[in-house]
Amino acid sequence: MSTTSNPDNTLITAQTVQQHACADDCWLVIDGKVWDMTAFAPRHPGGSQIILTHAGRDATTAYNTIHAPSLIEEEVPEAYKGRLDPSTVPKSWTTTTTTTTTTASTRPALTSILNTHDFAHAAQHSIPAKTWAFYSSAATDSHTHAANTAMYARIWFRPRVLRDVSSVSIKARFLGCAAVDMPIYVAPAAMARMVHVEGERAIARACARKGVLQCISTSASFPASQIVPVAPPAHPFFFQLYINSNRAKCAALIREIAAMPQIRGIMITVDAPVVGKREADERIRADETLHAPMSGQQAKNDAKGGGMGRVMGRYIDPSFHWEEIAWVRGLYSGPLMLKGVQTAADARMAVEYGVQGIVVSNHGGRCLDTSPPSILALLDIQRNAPEVFDKMEVYVDGGIRRGTDIVKALCLGATGVGLGRPFLYSLAYGTEGVEHLIDILRDEIETTMRLLGANSLSDLHPGMVNTADVDHLVPRGLDGHPYARNVERAKL
Amino acid sequence: MSTTSNPDNTLITAQTVQQHACADDCWLVIDGKVWDMTAFAPRHPGGSQIILTHAGRDATTAYNTIHAPSLIEEEVPEAYKGRLDPSTVPKSWTTTTTTTTTTASTRPALTSILNTHDFAHAAQHSIPAKTWAFYSSAATDSHTHAANTAMYARIWFRPRVLRDVSSVSIKARFLGCAAVDMPIYVAPAAMARMVHVEGERAIARACARKGVLQCISTSASFPASQIVPVAPPAHPFFFQLYINSNRAKCAALIREIAAMPQIRGIMITVDAPVVGKREADERIRADETLHAPMSGQQAKNDAKGGGMGRVMGRYIDPSFHWEEIAWVRGLYSGPLMLKGVQTAADARMAVEYGVQGIVVSNHGGRCLDTSPPSILALLDIQRNAPEVFDKMEVYVDGGIRRGTDIVKALCLGATGVGLGRPFLYSLAYGTEGVEHLIDILRDEIETTMRLLGANSLSDLHPGMVNTADVDHLVPRGLDGHPYARNVERAKL
Amino acid sequence: MSTTSNPDNTLITAQTVQQHACADDCWLVIDGKVWDMTAFAPRHPGGSQIILTHAGRDATTAYNTIHAPSLIEEEVPEAYKGRLDPSTVPKSWTTTTTTTTTTASTRPALTSILNTHDFAHAAQHSIPAKTWAFYSSAATDSHTHAANTAMYARIWFRPRVLRDVSSVSIKARFLGCAAVDMPIYVAPAAMARMVHVEGERAIARACARKGVLQCISTSASFPASQIVPVAPPAHPFFFQLYINSNRAKCAALIREIAAMPQIRGIMITVDAPVVGKREADERIRADETLHAPMSGQQAKNDAKGGGMGRVMGRYIDPSFHWEEIAWVRGLYSGPLMLKGVQTAADARMAVEYGVQGIVVSNHGGRCLDTSPPSILALLDIQRNAPEVFDKMEVYVDGGIRRGTDIVKALCLGATGVGLGRPFLYSLAYGTEGVEHLIDILRDEIETTMRLLGANSLSDLHPGMVNTADVDHLVPRGLDGHPYARNVERAKL
Amino acid sequence: MSTTSNPDNTLITAQTVQQHACADDCWLVIDGKVWDMTAFAPRHPGGSQIILTHAGRDATTAYNTIHAPSLIEEEVPEAYKGRLDPSTVPKSWTTTTTTTTTTASTRPALTSILNTHDFAHAAQHSIPAKTWAFYSSAATDSHTHAANTAMYARIWFRPRVLRDVSSVSIKARFLGCAAVDMPIYVAPAAMARMVHVEGERAIARACARKGVLQCISTSASFPASQIVPVAPPAHPFFFQLYINSNRAKCAALIREIAAMPQIRGIMITVDAPVVGKREADERIRADETLHAPMSGQQAKNDAKGGGMGRVMGRYIDPSFHWEEIAWVRGLYSGPLMLKGVQTAADARMAVEYGVQGIVVSNHGGRCLDTSPPSILALLDIQRNAPEVFDKMEVYVDGGIRRGTDIVKALCLGATGVGLGRPFLYSLAYGTEGVEHLIDILRDEIETTMRLLGANSLSDLHPGMVNTADVDHLVPRGLDGHPYARNVERAKL
Repeated sequence: MSTTSNPDNTLITAQTVQQHACADDCWLVIDGKVWDMTAFAPRHPGGSQIILTHAGRDATTAYNTIHAPSLIEEEVPEAYKGRLDPSTVPKSWTTTTTTTTTTASTRPALTSILNTHDFAHAAQHSIPAKTWAFYSSAATDSHTHAANTAMYARIWFRPRVLRDVSSVSIKARFLGCAAVDMPIYVAPAAMARMVHVEGERAIARACARKGVLQCISTSASFPASQIVPVAPPAHPFFFQLYINSNRAKCAALIREIAAMPQIRGIMITVDAPVVGKREADERIRADETLHAPMSGQQAKNDAKGGGMGRVMGRYIDPSFHWEEIAWVRGLYSGPLMLKGVQTAADARMAVEYGVQGIVVSNHGGRCLDTSPPSILALLDIQRNAPEVFDKMEVYVDGGIRRGTDIVKALCLGATGVGLGRPFLYSLAYGTEGVEHLIDILRDEIETTMRLLGANSLSDLHPGMVNTADVDHLVPRGLDGHPYARNVERAKL
Repeated sequence: MSTTSNPDNTLITAQTVQQHACADDCWLVIDGKVWDMTAFAPRHPGGSQIILTHAGRDATTAYNTIHAPSLIEEEVPEAYKGRLDPSTVPKSWTTTTTTTTTTASTRPALTSILNTHDFAHAAQHSIPAKTWAFYSSAATDSHTHAANTAMYARIWFRPRVLRDVSSVSIKARFLGCAAVDMPIYVAPAAMARMVHVEGERAIARACARKGVLQCISTSASFPASQIVPVAPPAHPFFFQLYINSNRAKCAALIREIAAMPQIRGIMITVDAPVVGKREADERIRADETLHAPMSGQQAKNDAKGGGMGRVMGRYIDPSFHWEEIAWVRGLYSGPLMLKGVQTAADARMAVEYGVQGIVVSNHGGRCLDTSPPSILALLDIQRNAPEVFDKMEVYVDGGIRRGTDIVKALCLGATGVGLGRPFLYSLAYGTEGVEHLIDILRDEIETTMRLLGANSLSDLHPGMVNTADVDHLVPRGLDGHPYARNVERAKL
Repeated sequence: MSTTSNPDNTLITAQTVQQHACADDCWLVIDGKVWDMTAFAPRHPGGSQIILTHAGRDATTAYNTIHAPSLIEEEVPEAYKGRLDPSTVPKSWTTTTTTTTTTASTRPALTSILNTHDFAHAAQHSIPAKTWAFYSSAATDSHTHAANTAMYARIWFRPRVLRDVSSVSIKARFLGCAAVDMPIYVAPAAMARMVHVEGERAIARACARKGVLQCISTSASFPASQIVPVAPPAHPFFFQLYINSNRAKCAALIREIAAMPQIRGIMITVDAPVVGKREADERIRADETLHAPMSGQQAKNDAKGGGMGRVMGRYIDPSFHWEEIAWVRGLYSGPLMLKGVQTAADARMAVEYGVQGIVVSNHGGRCLDTSPPSILALLDIQRNAPEVFDKMEVYVDGGIRRGTDIVKALCLGATGVGLGRPFLYSLAYGTEGVEHLIDILRDEIETTMRLLGANSLSDLHPGMVNTADVDHLVPRGLDGHPYARNVERAKL
Repeated sequence: MSTTSNPDNTLITAQTVQQHACADDCWLVIDGKVWDMTAFAPRHPGGSQIILTHAGRDATTAYNTIHAPSLIEEEVPEAYKGRLDPSTVPKSWTTTTTTTTTTASTRPALTSILNTHDFAHAAQHSIPAKTWAFYSSAATDSHTHAANTAMYARIWFRPRVLRDVSSVSIKARFLGCAAVDMPIYVAPAAMARMVHVEGERAIARACARKGVLQCISTSASFPASQIVPVAPPAHPFFFQLYINSNRAKCAALIREIAAMPQIRGIMITVDAPVVGKREADERIRADETLHAPMSGQQAKNDAKGGGMGRVMGRYIDPSFHWEEIAWVRGLYSGPLMLKGVQTAADARMAVEYGVQGIVVSNHGGRCLDTSPPSILALLDIQRNAPEVFDKMEVYVDGGIRRGTDIVKALCLGATGVGLGRPFLYSLAYGTEGVEHLIDILRDEIETTMRLLGANSLSDLHPGMVNTADVDHLVPRGLDGHPYARNVERAKL
């Protein structure tokens, strides 16, 4: 065997492969080709462990679950040793190989994906069951999760005709500083590497190419320092912060983020002082090798089940409250946002406590079931605390699946709209999948704008939607309710 | 073989047929009979190409997909050469022949069709999948398409009893000039030849016999000059106009239409400056031989899919706006209507800009999803711009499937009601199918009138329907909304 | 063979039976027994024709479809000739016999029937498909039919507790003269003999035993003169009248009814000047031997289908109007009611024209689809013409399936409540079935009264139900609507 | 065979077992082990009869249906005689044994049960069909039963963020005297021994361990005197009372209860003067050996069906009314509650008649169908009789399946919340099952409190829920209705 000749002409036996099965000498097989990963393993973005696990063996299944076929050939062409001699393959390998391709073969061609529903459907049938459970699950009976999307469909447009819509712009500026090509952002979702080995880095690549802002989660599968550099220096990010009970660790993380100029703002999650009960997530065992580098959490299975969300969120401090915002402010001078505000009363509090923005959100229905669908919470603010729109920016996420949903939220006062699950599902196709999703959303937003008679985001206003079907659901007053008497109840 | 003897007694081999396989000498087989189509091909309404494609071969499948069995015998009896000798048929022919009849056999007898639902069901199971996708599809999640029909069912009648309803008239006059036997019209739908080779011409024949007005689409599969002559000179038509980006071509078309006295009015489509996203249409490849002679567009498949609607609508000018109505007026002095008005505000604009009518329409739900269902838009005008009914005529289309739907729209102020998809589906049975549909609708409208206690259309008024279940959905005010503060948003 | 000996011991061959195959000498076989029907045929309530059709043959199927097994043994024991020798039966007989029992075997035991739903389910799976289609069908899309029942479920009770409900009475008096044991009546339904050979006579027997009033239809399968005598002289009936276009015949019928003292009132149907479009009924061919003796109509199949309702209702005069009530009054001095009033406006008209009662009804949803569900029409009268309850009696039918439905209608002002389809379905079990249904309804009404805290019908009032979920559906004003401007439309 | 040696080493033939088959000498086989039950049978909590029925036979099926495998080994270790010799087992035993395990095997592991739905699902597929029918059934069409749960989902939370929720307490005090660890209680449900041989005693054990109050039903399968001692002396109970038509018996029972200091209050059921019609219960034959010791009723099948509820409730006095509350008060000086109040008017009556509490309840939808869902009845009281919350305590049961439901009821004024069916279903797993259910509910309540921003029950108030979707359903006024005219109806 000589590496100078064309490796395609070199036949290697399975037995030879099995002799290179340690960290110092690590070969493996992918799709019938043999690779020497010894040099690459230590710098593998997904960690060396996953590679070493397959040392001396066939890694086709594990590889294809998360990588595009061409990745290895592009990244480490020099590692290619030759073709595996199929006649030498032991029985155990064959079994594994058979299962491998199933995942790939059940995924439709990317060009056939027309919308976010298609991405979800493709993901459900191709990504591992645990990953699907973790991403798709919501709290208890999923009422809020379902209502998040369903309530958008109860808002009608009021389309205006015969306006010149030959040109339309959907460029936006977030927090006065972050210029973006579209009024959407990637909501901070945890552990993107469960669906693709490049995880948040792959998303960042697509966002940079398409001018979309990404908000990095504290529970990202890479540290922010490994995600941000993927994009050019001018490309903006947000960072999502969970407050760690270990405040020293938390302060260190904030300082680290503050030192990255590309991160233009921090959104502190406030709707998850404890993690919601996500039963689908509990029902499937977690892969205990998974961990989140910035939060320092490790996946674990216990008596309650295999809940990734529950276990990965154990470090979150349930005592964090309004007065402590000043503590964060002391560590970070950039724009602060609160993610998870769900009432007009708290929107007003946010202004009082001097933050620059809020995200109206119920955590994708993953925290408290029967929390108000987020577009209803936005209407609550429109009715009961409309002045906040002048004093800070209001973002919204949860249930958004169409360009029409995005434009409705913008009409009702949102500066930007976050999408979470759709981006994770698109990531099953790698960076190209994320780009394809962004292209779809851009087309849907622009088409909606044109058919609505709007040329730019500043043309949008509440009079362009008809919320009559849901207006009666909007609370009247900050704490108002039609039951006047406050009830004294038995106390212990 | 002699043409003077009875061709039924002449047996012709498949090999003989195969020798007549060019434009100058074109034989083909249909249902076991051999025809010499050389003379007829150049004057075939569907174009000679489709005939020549089958020269020297068995054309049964292609023929039966679009023609009634008897058509060829009636049209070109002199072309009949004899019976095909079945023992000489090559294997390839047999395969084709087998698939042929399926289409026909899945279509129930026309006499068993009792309503528009039956027509839709029959079409879905007998017309080509692409045709079904193009006709039945609507924008994105089809919320508006579904609501168009569903909202009629939420309006109750208030039937009055013990009135003499022995005679009832449903004759109407459209735009002050077009006397029709029924207050309905065939909405302008594109490419009717996808379902029947005679397309819009077959519809015109049925309409002429039944006193129903047809509105010809710019995207019709025949030029208006080939449709209009099918009806007697007194029979009225409307013409639907898409504004072509190439204004010279557009002006030429308007002048051509203006020169046809049978066309009593032009409706300019205003709800489709760009074409909506119809995903079912994209998912099936288009037959690239299809074209629309008046718009000059040709079907095409590209990276986005096979969307007939998208590709055929590329020439539409998204910059056309209110001030340019005067330009059309300069080319056409007859009644002008705007098709696709969806708000009271634009209805009032239409009066201001001097048109003679509007069609309240959302393009059958094919443009902007979650546009208001058309009967709700009609109520918007009734509440917020009622004076427009005195100044112009208001038509409505979208979702109408029953005589009761039609009468409700008339009670709420419509002069006439357009139906699109039902006519296309009825066309699967040719002219007889369209006539049968008209008979059904006439019977349903008259029965509804009688059971409602009304003798003529002038008896109908809003007090005969109970809209209480949907009144809360009607916007209050032209641009009104319950969220008072207009929001200032970040601008780039 | 000797008739004095026990016929059970006589074996008769099929060939012998076949020799007695004419009107003068008519034998037939039922369930393996041979009967000489020569003497009985002329006086057969179902007509001799049906018997003669089976002369010399096995009539088991036809017999069991409509008769209880024991009927023939009870009615004509003397006709029993002996047992059929099974070894002599020709093949054709066997085939028929096999199908026979299916009908019986699919019907669950009467004791297992707990409610009206069970009766409907049993009927659907045991009565002939045409009978089911005729009875169960409703106009076009059946919206009103479904809403009739569904709207009752949207009305909540307001049950009062801790009242002494050890005794409860549900006796009522209809029209000031007809004392009944329960506040329900059998609504006039056509052609009961389609489900049971004794038809309306079997219903009358059960009603007489249980103290329930039956309203006889003009389209009954027996003349009233053959139904009324089935009950004791004091037992009250109503008569439902369709106005015949042939007014001489109509007058004769009214005079005939007027001469029957047991008939305590006539209800003129006013919601069916023409017959509604019942598509399920059209889709199945009618048995053309069926006829209605009082209306003189005969079943027929035509190009439109096999619609029993349509064909049997052809004689109804669509010109009958308010002023002609005086004509009926001239022929009949007893209480008159109008059946099919659906608006407060017409309820007020009824008072003006001097009738003694109305039935709020939409003909079981069989006439005009999207007519208001009948309980909604009753609320219309309660809101917009409440004074009529003091001036005449108000009955209601349509969609009532439970004792709770009945009590709700009574709370809202009804004097009595009619049920149609449930009685027809119960008739599949003959008189016992009807009695069983009445027992069920009595138990449900009494249980409802007790759980509601009411001792007699006079305790019921609108405050015992909570109509808040449907109050917004009730029209405001007699012809009121929120769209102020009456529209002028194009007229011919 | 010697009892001093290890019985595991003793092999006993089936024939030997069969020789010990009477009350004085009763052996039986369970899971392959032979037990001498002679001494234990007379003190068996489920009665000796069930043991004697299996004397000399294999009792595995019967035992496993209701007992945990380990129970017998813990309770009567001295009765173990040896292992059954499997080679001697007669065929009849084998058949029975096969069916046995099915029940157990269809029950998922308790650790996999995450919520009340899982418990219901597990019960439906493992408990006997009759038990399921009796527990799960509701009145007639089950509208109220379904709405009980569904209406909670129509109430949204208004979660407040950024409060310190590191500690949360859900301790409560019922009736001023009963300190409990959670604001829930076990609603009084009949015949718990149908699902587990230890029935209400097993529930009591779990409640005592977890600090939850249990309300013992008059129809319990054990007398209160056998349930209460299971818990430590300080642990509180309630007692539910049906008024027996035999007042002497009723008085004796009240006196017996009054003598038990652990019972801190009596709730008199007032919504079931007669038993509702529960059709699923009627359709399955009852086991006639079942009886309720305190009510003295015995299960029975009759012509109406096998309704446990109906038969077991025959002794209830439908004449009991407001004035007779004084009679109960004369016999019992502790706190009295009325269970089954459903209107604001009766809540006010309850205050007038001096009781200490009410339970807003519709008997789990088992009495009068279309009674208001209980949370709606609670809103009725909040709107129309809010002063009652200051004068007595208000509890609620019916449809509660989640911690979120519980917290909503508490926000709207409830002191405590009862759950019935979920506890019965959890009992299929014995005491551990009940404890597991309580753990689940505690976790759900605490999580809801934290995500809502509440630290203790006193923080909860109506402003924390958004009832806008159901407010229109709440009656206005005590007897109010929008139909002003009280109707005079025909009276007999």
